[in-house]
Amino acid sequence: MRESLRLESFSIPGYNANELRERGERLLPQLAEWSKSDFAGFRRVLDSGSDCYPDLKKIRRMAAAHRKGSSGKPIRDFVILGIGGSSLGAEAILRALHSPLQEPRFHVLDNADPAQMSWLLKGLDSRETLFYVVAKSGATPETLSQFLVAIQWVKKRAKGESWKKHFVLCTDPAKGDLRTLASRWKLDCLEVPPAVGGRFSVLTPVGLFPAAFAGIPLDPFLKGAASVAAWEKAPWHENPCAQLALALAKNARERPITVLMPYSSRLSAFSRWFCQLWAESLGKKGRGLTPYPATGATDQHSQMQLYMEGPADKCLLFVHVANPGGAVAIPSVAGTADLPSFGLLKGKSVGGLLEAEFRATRDAVTNQGIPNGTLAIDKLDAYSLGALFYFWEWATAIAGAELGVNPFDQPGVEAAKVLTKKYLNENR
Amino acid sequence: MRESLRLESFSIPGYNANELRERGERLLPQLAEWSKSDFAGFRRVLDSGSDCYPDLKKIRRMAAAHRKGSSGKPIRDFVILGIGGSSLGAEAILRALHSPLQEPRFHVLDNADPAQMSWLLKGLDSRETLFYVVAKSGATPETLSQFLVAIQWVKKRAKGESWKKHFVLCTDPAKGDLRTLASRWKLDCLEVPPAVGGRFSVLTPVGLFPAAFAGIPLDPFLKGAASVAAWEKAPWHENPCAQLALALAKNARERPITVLMPYSSRLSAFSRWFCQLWAESLGKKGRGLTPYPATGATDQHSQMQLYMEGPADKCLLFVHVANPGGAVAIPSVAGTADLPSFGLLKGKSVGGLLEAEFRATRDAVTNQGIPNGTLAIDKLDAYSLGALFYFWEWATAIAGAELGVNPFDQPGVEAAKVLTKKYLNENR
Repeated sequence: MRESLRLESFSIPGYNANELRERGERLLPQLAEWSKSDFAGFRRVLDSGSDCYPDLKKIRRMAAAHRKGSSGKPIRDFVILGIGGSSLGAEAILRALHSPLQEPRFHVLDNADPAQMSWLLKGLDSRETLFYVVAKSGATPETLSQFLVAIQWVKKRAKGESWKKHFVLCTDPAKGDLRTLASRWKLDCLEVPPAVGGRFSVLTPVGLFPAAFAGIPLDPFLKGAASVAAWEKAPWHENPCAQLALALAKNARERPITVLMPYSSRLSAFSRWFCQLWAESLGKKGRGLTPYPATGATDQHSQMQLYMEGPADKCLLFVHVANPGGAVAIPSVAGTADLPSFGLLKGKSVGGLLEAEFRATRDAVTNQGIPNGTLAIDKLDAYSLGALFYFWEWATAIAGAELGVNPFDQPGVEAAKVLTKKYLNENR
Repeated sequence: MRESLRLESFSIPGYNANELRERGERLLPQLAEWSKSDFAGFRRVLDSGSDCYPDLKKIRRMAAAHRKGSSGKPIRDFVILGIGGSSLGAEAILRALHSPLQEPRFHVLDNADPAQMSWLLKGLDSRETLFYVVAKSGATPETLSQFLVAIQWVKKRAKGESWKKHFVLCTDPAKGDLRTLASRWKLDCLEVPPAVGGRFSVLTPVGLFPAAFAGIPLDPFLKGAASVAAWEKAPWHENPCAQLALALAKNARERPITVLMPYSSRLSAFSRWFCQLWAESLGKKGRGLTPYPATGATDQHSQMQLYMEGPADKCLLFVHVANPGGAVAIPSVAGTADLPSFGLLKGKSVGGLLEAEFRATRDAVTNQGIPNGTLAIDKLDAYSLGALFYFWEWATAIAGAELGVNPFDQPGVEAAKVLTKKYLNENR
């Protein structure tokens, strides 16, 4: 099995081998208990015999059929209607592995924002557009409101029942209003396994159908994830995921901010996916860690000053992509050789510059005494991305167990949901 | 003068009128001193007689000339080569006021990422592309490396000297290697005023040239900013900017995280602009506040659990857009009336849903005892955006004075810059 990712460097004060072993013995029963229960099924996603395993054939078949379109024109624009866990995973995959200027183009409507919606629809041709409507509960008001607007928009431009070909739904296999509509209208509909929470659902049809639509092979995601899951067989003192998660949890009081800083613009959406996972899973009972989304080298020019000399409240986690892809030499251009800032770049590559920036930044923060770690991948592809997803899902579960919170619920958002309904009924 | 923005609600424990007055007397001399010095010229940007006032006519004229293109085709793609303060302000303007699917399309290359660069170039036609190369120092290696790659890419596809028409530079008026090249090659070149720091430069050509290119009127930005600057005439106990900045600084130890959560997807890039400003300006001497980028209602589904029940270390600042733009009614669709999740939306608008979500969230965090404030604007246009920019620039200066740090330097990023050069010379 190809190595998917490794802990390349690590300077966060954590636990020694004995302490890690002891924690493994204490926390593994809790993790095993959770694994059996609802919403903790992210590990069963990798088990081909389980209720959570994605039907890759069905996903690929459906993607291939819809790519052709139904109005004589292939689908050019794929619009995700989804919010939070219903969009962030797909975005992380697409930004990492699909050029934004290549067709099909992917768009995400992740808000009840009228301008965002009308701007997008004005730029699309309904005959060439497919909407992917994702809501595990089938009840998310932001997503349902967009769905209704999109139905009306397509219906106006389509003949008879043909509008239905422009929607694919993704929701609970049996429950909820979206599932009811899918049956009633005979819309294509994929399944979010009931045992997989929204923010853990990237390796289900939620993330995999858009990936398939982009032409990205699906098996490597699961294989990459499985390569990390295989670490479960090792004791915790040899398990980088447990080592990292427990060290971050240990420092939660002194260093409550976890900065994730991949050195790749293609992973900036991955950072945001991580932020939801880490924030919503661990932020409970006054505990938790605040995840911070960063991108290297970009945020050296916007955040690094704060990390270096601001409050000592952060741990930094780099993601180092050994080969960032698409070798681009920095050319020598006549008339620049005598200028010192250009001379520095002579004979170098863009990737070489990024690598130097990464090494320099890691050394600078280490010299400053800022605890940090580096996850390294050889290249950014579906295999390593699957590994990164699983790594952080698992690390989140372990950190939750250590912090004494249930990482699979989100009780703190109920109050606002109740008030939203109340205010919506009072208003226009 | 139209009101640009107001402090609509405020529950952050701050200072009473007497204390604010006393702080004004103590801190205003420091602010006045800074205003005279280098890098603190953001206030002079509004003074038509000063060295920092942008030449709007020149910016408009140059934008109009370049929009036509030079290869018989109008410019379809505008690519910003810039990082940190050289791109975030322009992005904030463009995402707020220009539809991403409308031409000209805007792209930002803000990293030394070979894949980001090669993906973009593959999707562009050099004859229809303009590069805007922004680096105040004229020495930023990420930007210069992209500039060299872009020159080679255009030169290969252009006749003779015509490639030069595809570049506009923006740098110091007299110093640096980019300025030298602009003179040497007779490239169009705009000026970053030496007295305005990069992260304070959005209302100079750095942000205004892309805005003009998008067809956005420029005067309202400055007028909106001036409407906030006019508060300077009032004493500090009547000045919402001072009130807010000082309250955030007062709570810096207990609540070191400042979440900015505008209720508009069009302001998500503004949140990131704010994050650079607040982070790089205040994070010094072990002091400072960590700014957190959020977007409402989207991040109710990814961050709100943490804000509500995680560590009590955050102040929340909402931006409330009273009229979010583009009225979109939620249509009644036959076959959905009996489903409760759809019934809730009956007769409502997308904007009405967003408004209900905002009010519900503000009430929920207030009920939870989380200090929060709301900046309100009537609608999202250049006038209110100019006001928001200036509000936060000014608040940053005041918070810096109160925290005892110089908000206009960034000494903590030098170490990594030195190491980058070293490693770059060792590497390919």
